[in-house]
Amino acid sequence: MPAPATLPAGITLDAEERALAARLFAEIAALSPDRAGVSRPAFSEVESATLAYLEREAARAGLTTSYDAGRNLIIVLPEDAEAAHYVLVGSHVDSVPMGGNFDGLAGVIAGLMCLMRARARGERLARPVRVIAMRGEESAWFGPCYIASKALMGVLGEAERAAAHRGDGRSLEAHMESVGIDMTPVRAGRPLMQSSDIIEYIELHIEQGPLLIGKDLPAAIVSGIRGNFRHGAVRCIGAEGHSGAVPRAFRRDPVLAMADLLTRLDETWLSILQKGDDLVLTAGIVHTDPGKNAMTRIPDEVTFSLDIRSQSPETLAGMRDLVAQEMAQIGRERRVRFEPGPVNTTAPALMDGRVVAGLVGAMERLGLEPMVMASGGGHDAAVFANAGVPSAMVFVRNRNGSHNPDEAMEIDDFLIGMSIIHEYLSHDGLEG
Amino acid sequence: MPAPATLPAGITLDAEERALAARLFAEIAALSPDRAGVSRPAFSEVESATLAYLEREAARAGLTTSYDAGRNLIIVLPEDAEAAHYVLVGSHVDSVPMGGNFDGLAGVIAGLMCLMRARARGERLARPVRVIAMRGEESAWFGPCYIASKALMGVLGEAERAAAHRGDGRSLEAHMESVGIDMTPVRAGRPLMQSSDIIEYIELHIEQGPLLIGKDLPAAIVSGIRGNFRHGAVRCIGAEGHSGAVPRAFRRDPVLAMADLLTRLDETWLSILQKGDDLVLTAGIVHTDPGKNAMTRIPDEVTFSLDIRSQSPETLAGMRDLVAQEMAQIGRERRVRFEPGPVNTTAPALMDGRVVAGLVGAMERLGLEPMVMASGGGHDAAVFANAGVPSAMVFVRNRNGSHNPDEAMEIDDFLIGMSIIHEYLSHDGLEG
Repeated sequence: MPAPATLPAGITLDAEERALAARLFAEIAALSPDRAGVSRPAFSEVESATLAYLEREAARAGLTTSYDAGRNLIIVLPEDAEAAHYVLVGSHVDSVPMGGNFDGLAGVIAGLMCLMRARARGERLARPVRVIAMRGEESAWFGPCYIASKALMGVLGEAERAAAHRGDGRSLEAHMESVGIDMTPVRAGRPLMQSSDIIEYIELHIEQGPLLIGKDLPAAIVSGIRGNFRHGAVRCIGAEGHSGAVPRAFRRDPVLAMADLLTRLDETWLSILQKGDDLVLTAGIVHTDPGKNAMTRIPDEVTFSLDIRSQSPETLAGMRDLVAQEMAQIGRERRVRFEPGPVNTTAPALMDGRVVAGLVGAMERLGLEPMVMASGGGHDAAVFANAGVPSAMVFVRNRNGSHNPDEAMEIDDFLIGMSIIHEYLSHDGLEG
Repeated sequence: MPAPATLPAGITLDAEERALAARLFAEIAALSPDRAGVSRPAFSEVESATLAYLEREAARAGLTTSYDAGRNLIIVLPEDAEAAHYVLVGSHVDSVPMGGNFDGLAGVIAGLMCLMRARARGERLARPVRVIAMRGEESAWFGPCYIASKALMGVLGEAERAAAHRGDGRSLEAHMESVGIDMTPVRAGRPLMQSSDIIEYIELHIEQGPLLIGKDLPAAIVSGIRGNFRHGAVRCIGAEGHSGAVPRAFRRDPVLAMADLLTRLDETWLSILQKGDDLVLTAGIVHTDPGKNAMTRIPDEVTFSLDIRSQSPETLAGMRDLVAQEMAQIGRERRVRFEPGPVNTTAPALMDGRVVAGLVGAMERLGLEPMVMASGGGHDAAVFANAGVPSAMVFVRNRNGSHNPDEAMEIDDFLIGMSIIHEYLSHDGLEG
């Protein structure tokens, strides 16, 4: 057993808030069970039910709720209901299949609990705050990521809207319409929320890597977010044949060609790291056709995903060229054809220096060791940042990564992360 | 378009037999359609319906039919119904999913048409002949191969009987009972057919590789059959994680480990061929868990099949050692674990020299160029040969390999292959 995460000396937490946070997380997990972990599909009824649950809890606490044009839940203090400009705080409520309960949801509940704390204490925040519980952010369901925030900023593209759902094959656009979104402005590329109305965007998220566990720190402020390019389904097409009767020289085996490609990319990855550059590379989905494949048949094709990320735009561009070159070369050598299919790209995003500094100041005032780090995973904050909104993130320590049922955030660490945002919202008014 | 297969000069074929063969193949294909090609699952109702169809056709031609203790269809000339010893001629009727119509079925129809020809001409064959239409031979459905012939020879093992069906998960034993087989003797390892009653075993089969197409020959006699070892489902187990947030050094990625293994085996394959040894190697089934996998998640495991074949027992033994060593080494290097799961093995089988010579003599008497070759694919003939029955095979030219919907045997080539066996059965009585 790993040692339990420890709280910094001198930090005290509110027992009622601890119980509240634990209840909110547990009740939402119970709304969205899967074979293991939770499953809150993007733009699904489970997602809508999650928003309805949050809406009821917010109303019970005396907060004002509404839905925006993207059918995301908006929660504000009653006195801020009409504010034209606001600090936007939130994250997404959807999850990957058999995912964890905290990826996304923690950021929403953090925002909600900042308002609940302010309401309970009868205090005003330094600037109007709008908490947002967004829908689909995970790419697991349709391929594109950051769907809700891209729609808000008017940058959800045509290919993304046409992407098919992994389960029912219906388009993202159809699913978005099913939850009540008028797609006319989305199709026209018109923002559903004016970026000029957003003073800042702040998002709490569990850390998805092992850094804070290693450093024994409960939270950190994020300085930037890795960009990526992703192929949801690369097809490698060869020629089928009998596994016993076709000599090697006659084969066009797509599985060995895929293995060759992945091995070459893995070797390149290592050499890029050795140069000191940043890169991660994952083939998370691999499959031959389950209706056709057999132990005794050379398959005619294999399908696999590629997710390649870096903090450096140059490294990403270099990898895109390299992947294309290797596919072409292996295609020639092994007489197969790689069809890379649609690619989704997200540029690396820098967080805003002033907001980062403000959050670091809040950490210090709370007696926490200030810590700033880069984000390996992508987040809605990247969309707001790339739309020109000054943005920053708070990472909360979390064991076992995310996108799996074993993600393990301590509620106490969550309360610390939430308190950093609350402290910042209470005292900082950079534009004032 | 490839050039059509050509018949040797001087060979004439019977138009009525050509029409008969075409009708039998077409009607059985219509009984067993799949999304593409045909599907005749082992020990299924489709398989039973195929045997019932053959039974009706045989009876209409004045032949005598029965079912043996393995619920395989037996067809004889009326005058041979009581013969204690017989030349056994046949093959299997099952196919892989989305398979071709000729793999297996051609050998059954060849035997049937030899008897039909003898009956139509009112001629006796040199020795009593028993034609057998066997059930499951393909490993695609349960994992084990040569199921019906192994049951006949009393060598269908416990692990094989317990193997789960790819579709419904029920055991092979349960499926065999479902088609009416009393499993008591099978479980006891008692043969359902006495090998000492079988004078010889002869099987016609489509060639599953490209050799006869390349040589422009309609048929060949087989000298031996590759053995194999097969893992239906190797699991490689790592640790799941977020595709963006886990650095390379922290990863335990099973997909990259599998790619590494397959690339190493592919390199070994090439070096074995360069030494002049015989080997083929296929990973026909590859998949991450479709319920859990996502583009943005490092999968916790991947499953793949391995089918490794050689004519040399030494090469097979060497490869088994090598696969185990590479799995252990990659497991250490990449902190993953390979679980190879059950392995099915079949020894290489030599065909009987006297029967091969007899069939070559029949080819020559028919004016065909004599041709002898090794079989890459495995066949029921290997089971009979390894049970001590003098066995041989006739291969028929076939385009596009087998185990796929595009296998393409010309009916004229089939009639030539059938005629070789008929000629042999009419004139040869080696034991007489």
